[in-house]
Amino acid sequence: VRHFTQELEELNQRLLQMGGLVEATIHRSVRSLVERNSALAEQVIRDEPEINDMEIQIDSLTTRLLARQQPVAKDLRFLTAAMKINTDLERMGDLAVNIAERALSLLAQPPVKPMIDIPRMAVLVESMLLNSLDAFVNADEAKARSVLMSDDEVDLLRDAVYGELVDYMQKDPTVVRSAVDLIFVARNLERIGDHATNIAEDVVFFVKGVDVRHHAEEKMHQN
Amino acid sequence: VRHFTQELEELNQRLLQMGGLVEATIHRSVRSLVERNSALAEQVIRDEPEINDMEIQIDSLTTRLLARQQPVAKDLRFLTAAMKINTDLERMGDLAVNIAERALSLLAQPPVKPMIDIPRMAVLVESMLLNSLDAFVNADEAKARSVLMSDDEVDLLRDAVYGELVDYMQKDPTVVRSAVDLIFVARNLERIGDHATNIAEDVVFFVKGVDVRHHAEEKMHQN
Repeated sequence: VRHFTQELEELNQRLLQMGGLVEATIHRSVRSLVERNSALAEQVIRDEPEINDMEIQIDSLTTRLLARQQPVAKDLRFLTAAMKINTDLERMGDLAVNIAERALSLLAQPPVKPMIDIPRMAVLVESMLLNSLDAFVNADEAKARSVLMSDDEVDLLRDAVYGELVDYMQKDPTVVRSAVDLIFVARNLERIGDHATNIAEDVVFFVKGVDVRHHAEEKMHQN
Repeated sequence: VRHFTQELEELNQRLLQMGGLVEATIHRSVRSLVERNSALAEQVIRDEPEINDMEIQIDSLTTRLLARQQPVAKDLRFLTAAMKINTDLERMGDLAVNIAERALSLLAQPPVKPMIDIPRMAVLVESMLLNSLDAFVNADEAKARSVLMSDDEVDLLRDAVYGELVDYMQKDPTVVRSAVDLIFVARNLERIGDHATNIAEDVVFFVKGVDVRHHAEEKMHQN
């Protein structure tokens, strides 16, 4: 029988490995869009089953550790955080597949406009994902909180993308279909950022035992 | 000290109560849209903090039960399912708030078209939610599987809504802003259906100990 610590380390490694694949997938999905490269989009779609398998493996490892080790306090918080982070990572993979599908749909239409804000959103949410995972494996509360601060910036970029695309559609009905695809890409990137925020909140809870979702912290201080 | 069974019953009750509020919230958000009624939309936005509080309470009850009762097998699966269902319900509440916000934005613009498919999608996803929760509290695998079957129907309705709205925008650029709002409403309803599907998958896993996510079952049979 292996040590609990070793098994927790294995769980950490698996989450990092999954996070790495999810990050690569998000990156590829946006590159396929910007470079109008269908091969990259197809790779994203092809890699999805691997992410799904990883989710199932991690879930079953976590459940096994909960059952066999009967952890309490911080170890228990680690395992429940791992379970939630696993779900968030898998959903991020789904969102990258949505982006890849939009990229393929956009390839069949002429380009609408130069891509500026969408790649910028992508850089931001990818760094949120990497920082939130880094915060998790290093139990680094400060880094987790820095991820929470990036969320407003993502929303600002999304608003800029929406506003501009609505203008384009109003001026030129022939771009409607492409513009709707791009609006969904921006929406999917925003949601990837939301999942990174969820992960960061789970990290703070795991490290401190304090729930920062829905500003529960401020409410506690007020009471 | 109360009995574990009693505490599980309390968890069940709380999830049902939260599910009831989430379902009412989805219903109100779509009614606010169809009836162009801002008061209903505002109620949805006002009720969100209550759903968030419920999520935090249920999460903390579940974590406490995991720590104190050290459950195994089906009880452990019940608790991990409860934890995931809790997250899904909270996200559904967020999506209803998004719909309410779109409804308010639409009120400031002239109506685009008669609403037919969107209310139909709403009826379908609300019944998916109720059936998935019912399946959970009654450990009813057949009912959970019936929810999984409704997913394709939701996707068909969504495609109908998208196609029609893209046509409207191409013909009349003045409806672009409203049509984009409605596309997001359809997307939010689709995602509410996805969360109901997640719940149903968690119920099958809880009842049978079999993971039906990502068609893991078929893969197992193939191997």
